[in-house]
Amino acid sequence: MKRIDIGLVGYGVVGNGVARILEEKKELLSKKSGVEINLKKVFTRNWNKSFPYPLPESKKAYSLDEILQDDDISIVVELTGGIDFPYKLISEAVEKGKHVVTANKALLAERGKEIFLKAEQKDIRIGYEAAVAGGIPIIRALREGLIANDIIKIYGILNGTTNYILTSMYKQGKDFKTALREAQELGYAEADPTLDINGTDAAHKITILASLSYGGFLDFSQVYVEGIESIHPLDIELGKDLGYVLKLLAIAKGHNGEVEVRVHPTFIPEDNPLAKVDGVFNAVMVEGDAVGESMFYGKGAGSLPTASAVISDIVDISKSIAEGVGRGIEITSMNWEHKDLTLTRVPDFYTRYYLRFTVPDVTGILAKVAAVFARFNISIAAVIQKEKVVSMYESKEKVVPLVILTHTASENNIQKAIKEIEQQGITVEKTVIIRVEDEEK
Amino acid sequence: MKRIDIGLVGYGVVGNGVARILEEKKELLSKKSGVEINLKKVFTRNWNKSFPYPLPESKKAYSLDEILQDDDISIVVELTGGIDFPYKLISEAVEKGKHVVTANKALLAERGKEIFLKAEQKDIRIGYEAAVAGGIPIIRALREGLIANDIIKIYGILNGTTNYILTSMYKQGKDFKTALREAQELGYAEADPTLDINGTDAAHKITILASLSYGGFLDFSQVYVEGIESIHPLDIELGKDLGYVLKLLAIAKGHNGEVEVRVHPTFIPEDNPLAKVDGVFNAVMVEGDAVGESMFYGKGAGSLPTASAVISDIVDISKSIAEGVGRGIEITSMNWEHKDLTLTRVPDFYTRYYLRFTVPDVTGILAKVAAVFARFNISIAAVIQKEKVVSMYESKEKVVPLVILTHTASENNIQKAIKEIEQQGITVEKTVIIRVEDEEK
Repeated sequence: MKRIDIGLVGYGVVGNGVARILEEKKELLSKKSGVEINLKKVFTRNWNKSFPYPLPESKKAYSLDEILQDDDISIVVELTGGIDFPYKLISEAVEKGKHVVTANKALLAERGKEIFLKAEQKDIRIGYEAAVAGGIPIIRALREGLIANDIIKIYGILNGTTNYILTSMYKQGKDFKTALREAQELGYAEADPTLDINGTDAAHKITILASLSYGGFLDFSQVYVEGIESIHPLDIELGKDLGYVLKLLAIAKGHNGEVEVRVHPTFIPEDNPLAKVDGVFNAVMVEGDAVGESMFYGKGAGSLPTASAVISDIVDISKSIAEGVGRGIEITSMNWEHKDLTLTRVPDFYTRYYLRFTVPDVTGILAKVAAVFARFNISIAAVIQKEKVVSMYESKEKVVPLVILTHTASENNIQKAIKEIEQQGITVEKTVIIRVEDEEK
Repeated sequence: MKRIDIGLVGYGVVGNGVARILEEKKELLSKKSGVEINLKKVFTRNWNKSFPYPLPESKKAYSLDEILQDDDISIVVELTGGIDFPYKLISEAVEKGKHVVTANKALLAERGKEIFLKAEQKDIRIGYEAAVAGGIPIIRALREGLIANDIIKIYGILNGTTNYILTSMYKQGKDFKTALREAQELGYAEADPTLDINGTDAAHKITILASLSYGGFLDFSQVYVEGIESIHPLDIELGKDLGYVLKLLAIAKGHNGEVEVRVHPTFIPEDNPLAKVDGVFNAVMVEGDAVGESMFYGKGAGSLPTASAVISDIVDISKSIAEGVGRGIEITSMNWEHKDLTLTRVPDFYTRYYLRFTVPDVTGILAKVAAVFARFNISIAAVIQKEKVVSMYESKEKVVPLVILTHTASENNIQKAIKEIEQQGITVEKTVIIRVEDEEK
């Protein structure tokens, strides 16, 4: 049985999980794969602390060169953080002809193009199953299982921290700050949760999924991202009345040669399977022209789920190496259109909207709002006017929320209409805009 | 770009879908895979009828030999029905050194061992993604994505017809016969739905999933199968009161070197993600020791979802051929333990039970039942006694349902206890037994 040597860089929670599984399941993995996978060396900056899965001295590397210069090592597993260091590391590994497995979504979303093009030139494979929703083999599903499909839409809950927070806001009526603090106490949110709650983490992941689904690279800096920081419990409550659940959705849709990619708090119908994905779980819904809707659900993070994904890539690449695969086929899988994707401009987004206006409690307001909507060709699907919910408003005069659910409209028209309504002085506070993913019946 | 020639046998709804996608998406598939996949010949017994996707004369084969004797054809796609004919066809294809893709679950469940061993000897790959839950790439997920996991349990809703029927019984309170008739009218149940409603179809599929998960072959004739034919709306109603939804679950669990495989109507908690899988959809829940719980959801049948799965295998094998893979690695993936699996005997099943006794409406009955339970070490978790539901009973005396939900107990003890209770004349009708998949808190 052929032996494949692995070098691992970064020994945090995921790295420890990878080492543990590779060691403890060595026999299982070789039975299932026909290859012997050998964790040869692990590098981390500081070996002088305790680790959940301690390694023997023989496996510890004290410099990167012990991995990069070792000709026996054919796969480098990158599990560090940040962007610049892993970029450099991966570039060097590729340069040396080593295949790479990474869980680094930020790196792939922001500098994936450079890495994949370099790898393509050198016939090197980059495994990144662990970069998106660790416990869910979604990369493999898109690349292989659903290969016969044109992807109409791919969307999902890709961040466990925000889903945990939104679930407790929805189920227990908590406000954002309380829910966040509790998530931190339970270890579901980091001490600095910025990149989770502002949507960046989910945006990194949907950028990767969109690239793979539509076959090219895209400019991450142009992806529309909105977080959950300013979600008010009132909107979750009012959404419930309309039959909706609020989720931080990451969405990619292909149309007219463009790809629309956006991450924002989104109302979805309570009978959408994603509406039932609670707590730290992740789920991805794929709509393909042949399979229809498929959903993949599981843990998005954590030591072992992420390690499980890392190892699936290690095994996959190890098998290819052992089989002596003529390279050059797998590598095309993310960039199969060999082009940069064009992102749909924000004003051209086309979806349904939940709008909450804060208005004085006097007659004639709805008529005024409706008149502006008509001018911008926005069709109203439902209206909710509540009398009692006043306490939250800072205004001293008596104000009420006026909620309008629209039919499908363009973002451009919605923004213009809101601007005009606010300029007319109809509203007394900033209007709340929440997009709605709900097919018109 | 290397061209791979395909021969297709069987031109029903799935075959038409496969041909349509291979032809209409030729360019997409080669971009994504790096291989040109060419549908060279299609065989069906009778070309003298009309087909949803008509083929040009040049692609029609009028004898199987046009495919089996054609050395250019390296993959035979088997989409016929039954067992004997496809068994012979696949055996011949393997003999000729041709790889095989099949959607035939009955064949693989009942005679898979012979086929896979033959294929192993010849270094031939058998693709069977389409045999289980077409729109869900579950075979690939188990074989590759979750390769680092010991599978603790795999269970799911693997038959759309029965799920459609149970969904309408649950949601609309229909009885079995009405729900079945409506399913037939809508095309969700076949004219002869026997193999669906008696659980055989789901049993074929879980047999395949169990083999793959636990790495060996098992004796299909010994798999425990119970259908939904005699499910009474009253039990669905009473289950609801306990917070349960009734599903036809196919379950495989590994423990103590044995595999417990069973298909039967099962109560699951309403917050289990599978409880929300409605209508004709399928879903598979996998519990792995590394990933925890993952769920895969999608269409289980239909022309294009199944064709999508067939094509994922065609592409996979085509890539291997084009890459000149040294064979012999992939093939081990189902039989990776190289042994026959031992099935857990039915009396050794160990689960929770919902039992509905039909008893006279007099005092002291519960005490008698409880006494028998205590003798057989069966612990009671909940009791429901209803006064009014009498109309359904044939008995003339006044009888009522007495429902007992047990903690985990052995099938053996449950059967003995029921026998004793019935022999003591406590009950006036046959006791209803429904197993419950609900972890003890």
